[in-house]
Amino acid sequence: MKKFKIAVIPGDGTGPEVVREGLKVLQVTSKKYNFSYETTFFPFGGDHYKKTGETLSVANVEELKKYDAIYLGAIGHPEVKPGILEQGILLKLRFSLDQYINLRPVKLYPNVDTPLKDKKPEDIDFVVVRENTEGLYAGVGGFLRKGTADEVATQESINTRKGVERCLRYAFKYTQKRNKRKKLTLCGKTNVLTYAFDLWERTFNEIAVDYPDVKTDYAHVDATTMWMVKNPEWFDVIVTDNLFGDIITDLGAMIQGGMGIAAGGNVNPSGVSMFEPIGGSAPKYTNLNIINPLAAICAVQMMLDVLGEVDAAQGLEKAVISSLQSGKIKSMSAGKMGLSTQEVGDLVASLI
Amino acid sequence: MKKFKIAVIPGDGTGPEVVREGLKVLQVTSKKYNFSYETTFFPFGGDHYKKTGETLSVANVEELKKYDAIYLGAIGHPEVKPGILEQGILLKLRFSLDQYINLRPVKLYPNVDTPLKDKKPEDIDFVVVRENTEGLYAGVGGFLRKGTADEVATQESINTRKGVERCLRYAFKYTQKRNKRKKLTLCGKTNVLTYAFDLWERTFNEIAVDYPDVKTDYAHVDATTMWMVKNPEWFDVIVTDNLFGDIITDLGAMIQGGMGIAAGGNVNPSGVSMFEPIGGSAPKYTNLNIINPLAAICAVQMMLDVLGEVDAAQGLEKAVISSLQSGKIKSMSAGKMGLSTQEVGDLVASLI
Ligand SMILES: CC(C)[C@H](C(=O)O)[C@@H](O)C(=O)O
Ligand SMILES: CC(C)[C@H](C(=O)O)[C@@H](O)C(=O)O
Repeated sequence: MKKFKIAVIPGDGTGPEVVREGLKVLQVTSKKYNFSYETTFFPFGGDHYKKTGETLSVANVEELKKYDAIYLGAIGHPEVKPGILEQGILLKLRFSLDQYINLRPVKLYPNVDTPLKDKKPEDIDFVVVRENTEGLYAGVGGFLRKGTADEVATQESINTRKGVERCLRYAFKYTQKRNKRKKLTLCGKTNVLTYAFDLWERTFNEIAVDYPDVKTDYAHVDATTMWMVKNPEWFDVIVTDNLFGDIITDLGAMIQGGMGIAAGGNVNPSGVSMFEPIGGSAPKYTNLNIINPLAAICAVQMMLDVLGEVDAAQGLEKAVISSLQSGKIKSMSAGKMGLSTQEVGDLVASLI
Repeated sequence: MKKFKIAVIPGDGTGPEVVREGLKVLQVTSKKYNFSYETTFFPFGGDHYKKTGETLSVANVEELKKYDAIYLGAIGHPEVKPGILEQGILLKLRFSLDQYINLRPVKLYPNVDTPLKDKKPEDIDFVVVRENTEGLYAGVGGFLRKGTADEVATQESINTRKGVERCLRYAFKYTQKRNKRKKLTLCGKTNVLTYAFDLWERTFNEIAVDYPDVKTDYAHVDATTMWMVKNPEWFDVIVTDNLFGDIITDLGAMIQGGMGIAAGGNVNPSGVSMFEPIGGSAPKYTNLNIINPLAAICAVQMMLDVLGEVDAAQGLEKAVISSLQSGKIKSMSAGKMGLSTQEVGDLVASLI
């Protein structure tokens, strides 16, 4: 029997509440599908930062490398200046654990309300593969004559062949394995970002020959946002850079029913990956037992899939779908579910 | 009586067809509202490039500076490599005529179908003010070890205090003048693009004190795309940089009914501005008399507004709305309008 070591970072705001439900479902799933795991809790987040002045130390990162996966609730604290925790924890983990893929399934489940007209679950079912360690997230840039009328501020997108190629290869393989329409769309802006996306496009075309069964397509990022709203059924897998990925995955979360249901994986295929509901810490809903835990539960599903527990992951997804089909969950939005956070967790757990 | 000198660039594909209808409506409007104009046609575009090898020469730009406004159909040719015409004509005009504002009203007109559920004309009515001459559109970047496994490709966002401030001031003034909800939202990514959007945010906050009647707000670009789909009624005016503006204005076009109805202005408030339907050259619909000319007609309306013919612009907008209220135009999409391109132009002209 396999045994996984999982580092849990419940984090801020509603993070601990949704993580609790995710772990509840994980426990039931492990029994049914016969794997075992142990969890170790870490306090990183806004409160820890306020108490200790530390976001995440080098030693913390080294410690986390010993785990098979990281399960994260949410990072973000109303009393901490925006940027500090995102950079100091979330982005630091992505970069120092070399989680070079951000994986975001955009899937409309039954009985989930989408803001789009006439779109059904079969129309909204694609995956975004976002490069997660370079591009405009490199943190490179600076100021000249800061604070004067002549100030110049720069921000640089850095793209390496290595970084782009490993992301693209992952996307091609993922498209093959997903085995739906076997179509991979590169989302870029080749007509304006003529250096960055020249590398992307060239590499995409070069390595496409290694995956002859995958159909390839290209869309500018501006057009991509349009088709996501008008014709989401056109997409199977989309691969893109870090910043465009950030934008289109949030748009994707919205069309699949909002933050209550959207999960993401920060994947290092040969290292430690991290899974999270992408909704943030939602301070105003904290400890009210009204936040939707489904995104956190779906993050567990992605974690199991990446850890190789494919049957368990499928079983968990079926339970999520059954919970939605039951009609007991009235809405994906906090406070409007008709059930409490715990009741939603119990419902899914009961359906495993 | 005022007399305007208008440079007309019909351009490629369906450009000439929609420009014809725009000019038809302009003529009727000028009679009713008592202004006069003369048009001069320029051949720039894909065909001209294929014949002459020239996109737009320095002399061409100098010539265009003599006009009061430029009316553009569409640029883009299936036989010309993507990027050449965009960079050589569209972006070159924006940069060399210092059209530092890209103005994009996102307005759902009556009887126009939006892909969003439950959204009515009163819910979708905002304006995006996009910086149009710097940021990642500067064209700055390069390659190291191009074509090798160690290749690095960079692309730089360059933001100047001057460029950011003039755009923000325009947006604040525009919000005041628009006089709807007097709310201006800065769309950025302060938590990751910590240099570029630090300058934007600092300048925004500094100059906000000069416009005390304007309420200010901030949204990350990823969140902005979500709210545009979920709660477009939250927005009044959005100001943002060149790349984010490119993305959210296309998303905006989609939620207001698509490219058939979306117009944009490239504005230099003290120079020559350029107005265009934003839909592109749509080669496959060329010369079929089925493309929607409303976007090109709305571009004329924006042109008149910026030229100071405010009553004429309002009259023209009313005629567009009446044409839609008539129920005679069945769809915004090419080939599905129930009327030909010319008939739509005639209908609007008859309602001036
Ligand atoms: C919190 C923020 C730094 C982060 C990002 O921009 O990547 C988030 O938006 C995401 O997509 O995971
Ligand atoms: C054609 C292209 C260069 C242009 C841009 O990216 O600005 C277009 O998308 C636009 O928004 O006007």
